[in-house]
Amino acid sequence: MTVYQATASAPVNIACIKYWGKRDTALILPTNSSLSVTLSQDHLRSTTSSRADASFEQGDRLWLNGKEEEIKAGGRTATCLAALRKWRKEVEDRDSSEPKLSEWPLRIASYNNFPTAAGLASSASGLAALVASVSQLYALPQSASELSLIARQGSGSACRSLFGGFVAWRMGERDDGSDSLAEQVATREHWPNMHALICVVSDAKKGTSSTSGMQLTVKTSTLLEHRIKHVVPQRMEEIERAIAAKDFDSFARITMKDSNSFHAVCLDTEPPIFYLNDVSRAIIAVIEELNRASIANGNGYIAAYTFDAGPNAVIYALEETMPVVVNAINEFFPQNQTFPDPFKMLNKDVTRPQGFNGAVVREGGWEKGAVSRLIHTTVGDGPRRLGDEESLLNEAGVPKTLA
Amino acid sequence: MTVYQATASAPVNIACIKYWGKRDTALILPTNSSLSVTLSQDHLRSTTSSRADASFEQGDRLWLNGKEEEIKAGGRTATCLAALRKWRKEVEDRDSSEPKLSEWPLRIASYNNFPTAAGLASSASGLAALVASVSQLYALPQSASELSLIARQGSGSACRSLFGGFVAWRMGERDDGSDSLAEQVATREHWPNMHALICVVSDAKKGTSSTSGMQLTVKTSTLLEHRIKHVVPQRMEEIERAIAAKDFDSFARITMKDSNSFHAVCLDTEPPIFYLNDVSRAIIAVIEELNRASIANGNGYIAAYTFDAGPNAVIYALEETMPVVVNAINEFFPQNQTFPDPFKMLNKDVTRPQGFNGAVVREGGWEKGAVSRLIHTTVGDGPRRLGDEESLLNEAGVPKTLA
Repeated sequence: MTVYQATASAPVNIACIKYWGKRDTALILPTNSSLSVTLSQDHLRSTTSSRADASFEQGDRLWLNGKEEEIKAGGRTATCLAALRKWRKEVEDRDSSEPKLSEWPLRIASYNNFPTAAGLASSASGLAALVASVSQLYALPQSASELSLIARQGSGSACRSLFGGFVAWRMGERDDGSDSLAEQVATREHWPNMHALICVVSDAKKGTSSTSGMQLTVKTSTLLEHRIKHVVPQRMEEIERAIAAKDFDSFARITMKDSNSFHAVCLDTEPPIFYLNDVSRAIIAVIEELNRASIANGNGYIAAYTFDAGPNAVIYALEETMPVVVNAINEFFPQNQTFPDPFKMLNKDVTRPQGFNGAVVREGGWEKGAVSRLIHTTVGDGPRRLGDEESLLNEAGVPKTLA
Repeated sequence: MTVYQATASAPVNIACIKYWGKRDTALILPTNSSLSVTLSQDHLRSTTSSRADASFEQGDRLWLNGKEEEIKAGGRTATCLAALRKWRKEVEDRDSSEPKLSEWPLRIASYNNFPTAAGLASSASGLAALVASVSQLYALPQSASELSLIARQGSGSACRSLFGGFVAWRMGERDDGSDSLAEQVATREHWPNMHALICVVSDAKKGTSSTSGMQLTVKTSTLLEHRIKHVVPQRMEEIERAIAAKDFDSFARITMKDSNSFHAVCLDTEPPIFYLNDVSRAIIAVIEELNRASIANGNGYIAAYTFDAGPNAVIYALEETMPVVVNAINEFFPQNQTFPDPFKMLNKDVTRPQGFNGAVVREGGWEKGAVSRLIHTTVGDGPRRLGDEESLLNEAGVPKTLA
């Protein structure tokens, strides 16, 4: 008896041009296009196994990190599965020898190799892994961009995790969302020395969720519309040109400007939304000062910070300049967890740009754990197809961790 | 022998609609109109004595808080004095019996009754007191609005400290700045129960000065122009209507929105400017939650926060609701200095609005001194003419504190 199953992993992506605001909350159609860098699955990934079997009872079931989650009728997961089934049905209709997988219940197990506490957007990689896994199970002929239409409806920015490298989510124009999809702007091989350092910043208070926060901004900010209509379109063009030309200076400048613009419209929301805290501000100050001193010396930008809907910093730098960043951040923000330093950059013989003013950092330094951990990774590839030996499900269609 | 001298005091003003950006840095012409509340001189004031004497040598001399300051040729103080002399000359030309004060050297001493460390804009009250004092010495016939043209060139927002109550600074249109002046929107008697609580917030780092910060925003922010052209003009109309109608709900809402809008364009600056820190954010959270709970109970806004170019909060509330604010801030932010509580609101029998969620405040509360002191005051009057017995200068034209 053939077992119909597939296991896929999908990457985390971190936006340089931020998605903030929906024009359609049901279809998840954004108010502006966005652009992200896909991070390597060697360090951060969601893995999802899916299995279809006519003998499964109780309909579809889903486990996230070993915990069963209800698949609510009309909910986002259900919407994605229905869309994937529709395309599977087309396969079956074209070739009657294909098994009727679209009619069988599914068992899906998903696992993130990074703690939720890390504050990284796990919904993007998780939804992307789900769509990748089920589309493989269903042997769908659709392209990654077409699949991104489905991932987008599960979790907006998930659509960007269906590609490696540098990825744009085109906002589209149509009311049905059929042109609101992701596409690759450049492969990781185009700019393989793009590195990313994630600084996990502790925050006592849970911030506003991005889902509710962005719609509050849409409703109340007097600056958002200007950002959407006049600022982001130009920035999208500029950063795509910067990526094509591997122009790190422009890439860094635009990335930082857009992060700040996004947090500015959050602040302009009623009531205001704050994601950056004093530690986030201190990380910004260090990166700005590294860049200032480097530029004053006639050199280029050293790094670019960007912040999503939380206090964690993601710092982009090229492999050549990342050692300066790693050592500065590690010194100024002693962590709770030992930094695994996968690229052996710690205590490397690096010199900060001449004229770097250490006074930008709080006197006496930050207390241990203000940054709880560092994750160093690089630009990475898109969803991977994994072998059955890596399946998260056992023969009964239950997560192995539970069996 | 007649002694020609005058002593005046002038108030601090705190803007509800913020001034941020100059279209002419020499004349200090703003990119948008602004509106402020004048605070009572019973608590916060600058006092300035000026004296003209033909026998003074070495030209004009100025002391600020007992320390002599150079009056730089072409500098802002020199510009103000030259303009005042020009108007005095007109008085003398019209009436030849008038002594030729405009030709005599000046001795000026100014003193703030609040520490610079309080982080309150002392330049506004200081320049206003200087203009008020010299214009009294010179017996100028000009109106306060006309004098505001001169104060504006000394320190932009000083023009608003020439009136009591509620004051607008009209940005004007002319290139020579002759229509960029302050005018009173409402007297303090119109809305005398308007109170203000200043929370002096400690900040380890000195922020960007407002003079350099605002021009960096003008140069680099992609959101400022929209704020200037499309957001502020409407807000000015709305807040003036709110003040006319003594509509605190609208006053509070607009004040908070504009403070956040101002800090949003600061964040949108390259490199970003941060004035709010975690303590500022926590004060915002408390006020927002007090308002939320009160509104949920079918009542109105309790208070409004506003922040200038620093972490200090100024909280506006009517006398009736201020006790709730004073007691909440005092409890959540224990200070270094004992709060003098001039209006006897501490430990008054007040109840927070039902449903107030204390979880908005950091668990365990804030460490003592995160807010170093509280200053409670009210809306106040414009510059005061003081008697010679309050002069800061001795007979030799030297500050009494130095003699």
